[in-house]
Amino acid sequence: MAPPRLYLDWNATSPLHPRARDAVLCAMDLFGNPNSVHREGRGARAAIEQARRQVAALAGADSANVIFTSGATEAANMVLTPDFKMGRTPLTISQLYYSAVEHPAVREGGRFAKEQTTEIPVTQAGVVDVDALGTLLAAHDASTGLPMIAVMLVNNETGIVQPVTEVANIVRAHGGLLVVDAVQAAGRLELDINALGADFMILSSHKIGGPKGAGALVTRGEALMPRPLIHGGGQEKGHRSGTENSLAVIGFGAAAEAAVAELETRNEAISAVRDRLETGMRGAAPDVVIYGTEGQRVSNTTFFTLPGLKAETGQIAFDLEGVALSAGSACSSGKVGESHVLVAMGRDPKLGALRISLGFATTEEEIDKAISVFAKIAARRKPAGEAA
Amino acid sequence: MAPPRLYLDWNATSPLHPRARDAVLCAMDLFGNPNSVHREGRGARAAIEQARRQVAALAGADSANVIFTSGATEAANMVLTPDFKMGRTPLTISQLYYSAVEHPAVREGGRFAKEQTTEIPVTQAGVVDVDALGTLLAAHDASTGLPMIAVMLVNNETGIVQPVTEVANIVRAHGGLLVVDAVQAAGRLELDINALGADFMILSSHKIGGPKGAGALVTRGEALMPRPLIHGGGQEKGHRSGTENSLAVIGFGAAAEAAVAELETRNEAISAVRDRLETGMRGAAPDVVIYGTEGQRVSNTTFFTLPGLKAETGQIAFDLEGVALSAGSACSSGKVGESHVLVAMGRDPKLGALRISLGFATTEEEIDKAISVFAKIAARRKPAGEAA
Repeated sequence: MAPPRLYLDWNATSPLHPRARDAVLCAMDLFGNPNSVHREGRGARAAIEQARRQVAALAGADSANVIFTSGATEAANMVLTPDFKMGRTPLTISQLYYSAVEHPAVREGGRFAKEQTTEIPVTQAGVVDVDALGTLLAAHDASTGLPMIAVMLVNNETGIVQPVTEVANIVRAHGGLLVVDAVQAAGRLELDINALGADFMILSSHKIGGPKGAGALVTRGEALMPRPLIHGGGQEKGHRSGTENSLAVIGFGAAAEAAVAELETRNEAISAVRDRLETGMRGAAPDVVIYGTEGQRVSNTTFFTLPGLKAETGQIAFDLEGVALSAGSACSSGKVGESHVLVAMGRDPKLGALRISLGFATTEEEIDKAISVFAKIAARRKPAGEAA
Repeated sequence: MAPPRLYLDWNATSPLHPRARDAVLCAMDLFGNPNSVHREGRGARAAIEQARRQVAALAGADSANVIFTSGATEAANMVLTPDFKMGRTPLTISQLYYSAVEHPAVREGGRFAKEQTTEIPVTQAGVVDVDALGTLLAAHDASTGLPMIAVMLVNNETGIVQPVTEVANIVRAHGGLLVVDAVQAAGRLELDINALGADFMILSSHKIGGPKGAGALVTRGEALMPRPLIHGGGQEKGHRSGTENSLAVIGFGAAAEAAVAELETRNEAISAVRDRLETGMRGAAPDVVIYGTEGQRVSNTTFFTLPGLKAETGQIAFDLEGVALSAGSACSSGKVGESHVLVAMGRDPKLGALRISLGFATTEEEIDKAISVFAKIAARRKPAGEAA
């Protein structure tokens, strides 16, 4: 008989939050096209505008500054472009600087050509090297256009919190634009786009318990905007055309509201189980390497290497024991590659690393089961140096 | 007391088909990230691949040739680009020719510059002028790149079926690429991408009873592909990055399967009620102008002008009487403009036109009620020439 399942891969995607599920169920009957002026259309429109206020509250932003997209990847592709407008005046961004630990949705550079992108190194601790950023921006030739800087608030693999406020000060000093991928920070840290000093913030619904298929580009104002990525009927004030995905957007709003309301209680509960997990793991395998413990991490992520166990092998072993976790991030199907995050941190990527990530429904019982599976797998490892 | 509602705006969006609703409910528990290799991920992946086969069957295509997008607008923006590849070799498209009655998602031209687009006129009957297309393509300078031609299979406002097979022959003769927006044709006509002679077909979930937030770009093969619009994790074989919108995609698949299974019975039932509607309308207001009756129309759409009644005024009047219909197409919120379709057909756009569009759940009783509301509104019109 297959063991009961234990889901510990919340950074890849979250089960629907009960409030998001309820919202999606209600939204099924709000079927009107939100762009229709009749009652059915207005009903859908009102629900979408409520979701916009809920997502704005999550980001500490004004609801006029939330543009819904099909997800964080689209939002990244929308904002990462050389073509901006300040009001109606074209504005050129000549170079994109992104940290070496960004998500592929950012690392691919959106609409920038490859030669218009520059990587910002991270330290061995997995934190953006702010001195290196300062040096890069000091060398930026502003006569060609503004610099754009993309730094995530929380890394998806390690859970490490990045020094975004410090980054923002440097960016401001050099007249650049700052894009903050807050996908893994939402629901785990309090967000405030103004306090962070970000010009743009990227959010995703399905990482916080909303449905897949919705995300947002949040801005600080309405003056400075990227050229739209998707043209057509002129929805989202012309910034993003296409009939709004009402089910997902309404679910996203409910999940955002829940994330704000439950932030403290969730973090308390999740840190407690994560501490219990890491203590258990170190007890079962004292040689386990857990990354990012020296700095600030969000409460839900444990990124680790078990000497003698290749990450992909480990992932399959955990899956067979009923535990869902991941080897690095879940990006494209079947893609097994080196973790660019480990490489950026100067670690040996040969064994790779596994990621356990917890969520609002994770229980102590689940953690105890996870520890026992971990212990079992750790016990049958090959000796270090003979990775299976 | 507000009158009970009567939804006659199915071309703007469809209520969820019962099978799509069931599929979405089931999909809520398939929450894994379809790119994760563990069991939860594989479960979501299997459901998405089933949806791909269902959508492929709707398009008469191979499931390897279905790329899921966030909707038809994104699919249009993806395929309407000068940057193609034939295998690994870059291929340039130098000019986009689109019919004057295309949806704004196509008329905006995607990634083509404005000067790279040319409009193909339509006849007074609302049908693409194939002779004019032949002349345009004969004058195309192929030394600069291939021509791309975009012609919809069914117009969203009039329901008029376009001569796509004939268009395809002309396009083929001039070595061009043909993009067919089949959004309003799906579920109303049998689709076969190969028989149509289309290189690319655009589909939308929410027009056929699936959820909003999903669409597809269907291709004839895998060799000739546009440069991706959205870069990142490499999903959809690298053609469209971003975590798949599993709820919407799975619902789309179920709606597509239902559309194929019910095509004939739906068309029979819907033509019967539409005939009843139009007979009733002509009885109540013999001066009503119904467009597109002289050629081939799909069975569900009635596009009409009631002399003496402005379309926007009429739409509000119907809405107040409990009937949801539209004045032209439902595009961007609050946008009230001339119908480009009426203008393209050489009609006076001053009064505009109203669109009644029916769907799989429309009943005779609803039609009778619609006729009586129509009669009431027609009776209180100002005399022609004094439009309210």
